[in-house]
Amino acid sequence: MTDPVQLTADLIRCPSVTPEEGGALVLLEALLSDAGFECTRVDRGGVSNLFARWGPKGHARSFGFNGHTDVVPIGDEAAWTMPPFGAEMRDGVMYGRGTTDMKSGVAAFAAAAIDLVHDTPPDGAIILTITGDEEGDALDGTTALLDYMAETEERMSVCLVGEPTCPNHMGEMMKIGRRGSMTAWFTVTGVQGHSAYPHRAKNPLPAMARLMDRLASHELDQGTAHFDASTLAVVTIDTGNTATNVIPAQCSGAVNIRFNDLHSGASLSEWLQSEANQVAETYGVEIDTKIKISGESFLTPPGPLSELVAKAVKAETGIQPDMSTTGGTSDARFVKNHCPVVEFGLVGRTMHQVDECVEVVHIEQLKAIYTRILADYFA
Amino acid sequence: MTDPVQLTADLIRCPSVTPEEGGALVLLEALLSDAGFECTRVDRGGVSNLFARWGPKGHARSFGFNGHTDVVPIGDEAAWTMPPFGAEMRDGVMYGRGTTDMKSGVAAFAAAAIDLVHDTPPDGAIILTITGDEEGDALDGTTALLDYMAETEERMSVCLVGEPTCPNHMGEMMKIGRRGSMTAWFTVTGVQGHSAYPHRAKNPLPAMARLMDRLASHELDQGTAHFDASTLAVVTIDTGNTATNVIPAQCSGAVNIRFNDLHSGASLSEWLQSEANQVAETYGVEIDTKIKISGESFLTPPGPLSELVAKAVKAETGIQPDMSTTGGTSDARFVKNHCPVVEFGLVGRTMHQVDECVEVVHIEQLKAIYTRILADYFA
Ligand SMILES: [Zn+2]
Ligand SMILES: [Zn+2]
Repeated sequence: MTDPVQLTADLIRCPSVTPEEGGALVLLEALLSDAGFECTRVDRGGVSNLFARWGPKGHARSFGFNGHTDVVPIGDEAAWTMPPFGAEMRDGVMYGRGTTDMKSGVAAFAAAAIDLVHDTPPDGAIILTITGDEEGDALDGTTALLDYMAETEERMSVCLVGEPTCPNHMGEMMKIGRRGSMTAWFTVTGVQGHSAYPHRAKNPLPAMARLMDRLASHELDQGTAHFDASTLAVVTIDTGNTATNVIPAQCSGAVNIRFNDLHSGASLSEWLQSEANQVAETYGVEIDTKIKISGESFLTPPGPLSELVAKAVKAETGIQPDMSTTGGTSDARFVKNHCPVVEFGLVGRTMHQVDECVEVVHIEQLKAIYTRILADYFA
Repeated sequence: MTDPVQLTADLIRCPSVTPEEGGALVLLEALLSDAGFECTRVDRGGVSNLFARWGPKGHARSFGFNGHTDVVPIGDEAAWTMPPFGAEMRDGVMYGRGTTDMKSGVAAFAAAAIDLVHDTPPDGAIILTITGDEEGDALDGTTALLDYMAETEERMSVCLVGEPTCPNHMGEMMKIGRRGSMTAWFTVTGVQGHSAYPHRAKNPLPAMARLMDRLASHELDQGTAHFDASTLAVVTIDTGNTATNVIPAQCSGAVNIRFNDLHSGASLSEWLQSEANQVAETYGVEIDTKIKISGESFLTPPGPLSELVAKAVKAETGIQPDMSTTGGTSDARFVKNHCPVVEFGLVGRTMHQVDECVEVVHIEQLKAIYTRILADYFA
């Protein structure tokens, strides 16, 4: 029996802040190789990733897991009451960066897979895709693994991402999709001048205020069958002018949009551009718009995969998980181009925070859920 | 005959960037004392000022001049093609910081006054109030001189401020009042959060955008008999949030208002406060408002003083000056509490700029205008 709690602790002690590998993938590669997995390190652009397969390549029943071993920075170390890379326990709780997001998840699915192939070798394959670049730009993480799989004709039939998905209680939520995410930066350029002679200047700020007011006031939609309403957040407006008798020449601002399946990055880009153009024309200023689409919205409609996961969660926790599409982005946005993907993992409440922690019993429960999912899948 | 061009050059060579006296007031005090003026240095709060009177104290016909010898910083010295404190001449133009704003004006009225009391001593008094703190906070400049005059029962019957008043052509404009000026700073405070969950945060930015849009869109008035329309310029909005997945807790912004005689600092403060309160209530955020009134609007209605000045300008330049109330603030905003005040001086086009310069012939013309004003006043 592989102890997922011990494995989580071992991984926590690897200081793998993005893009540092920190020993975490080396540890997993050794463990999985010993258990009979074919392992390949897929490193790209200064980050490390691990591909591991047990069973025949190209099997029609290839169950995939996806997760990451990199963690966000610890922030203010003095604010931690426990060592951030210590994996210290207190009252059944393990503390450390990555205890919820998501070294425990990786440990749970690795332990489940190792034990399953040892105890009841399935007729099929298990594929683990573990990246060291999820918290950073994610340009060379799961994407690199999927590129490697395309090149080498490796294939997952379905995939379960082990990110923390439960807001407060173990088992209450899984994710069957995610809203899309995009950011738009606007730079409004006018003509500098003196506050006493505004007619000789072209002030970019009223145009920026109008644009941001219009964008923030617009209702994108009211939600769909599986998605919450799309949201737009104005995240910054900046000018940097300290002289109150000067009308500045330029200011900049940004909005972040989380959008459901009624929109696409392209349709929203068009809307943003058209709003900017209208305001630019009204005010006689120039508005430069830069847009970055972090991920399109996606949905794995409720079906066999989500039912499989939900059934296992219910069996182990007694709770029927919501099939949600809330929250930020995850690497599921990449995996969805490869195969059906859903997400289930721990309670994420302390993720990215000081004193990030996990209840030890939840790690064991998570391994049990993953084990049941595998057993049911191969049954 | 006192040469106003030589005197301007001597003053330019005194590097009197606010709050440095730089030798300028020392030079003027020596010159005026020699000419029979009673001089008093009125220094306060680290800045220097000069009070000079020729003739009896308290005379019913006491003509006053007001001006400043301090100058704004030279900015990027490398951008100057002439030494900023060199007073060098080229093609009849003198270059240097303060050549238009306003050492030439001080030189012209000092030279006019010295020559007049020498050649045709008037039945009355001439009072020169020259400050070294006009370009800075102006807390201890003309205000200190006026305080000194109140304490010592000195009195000007009328006052002419020698600031540059002509936009492009010598003689085309005098000032009979000024719009008021005030700045309001707004700090909007909400609750920080994650861009993916805007309903859990309270974003201060849409409130700021709405507030600034409302203020900038509002027409304060359409102008009055002697004043242009009041104007409001949004001068900055700042947040400083670089994380696009974070909704910030706070942002700040500022507006600068130039207002005519339909408004007062108090009436506009009330309006700004009420707009801020409405927006704060609509958005459920807090808006902190700080207001600084730099000066109330004021007007010396067309009458004997403005006619006296206009007549002299017309006689010396052939041009009938507009009686304007445009432009930024000047120390006339303080003098108006003491006596009727108007402003006339040079072409201000290069003031505060690199390669600030003055046509030498304009300095001579200005001395002639001031001489004629004095002669007519005492006639
Ligand atoms: Zn994660
Ligand atoms: Zn000036």
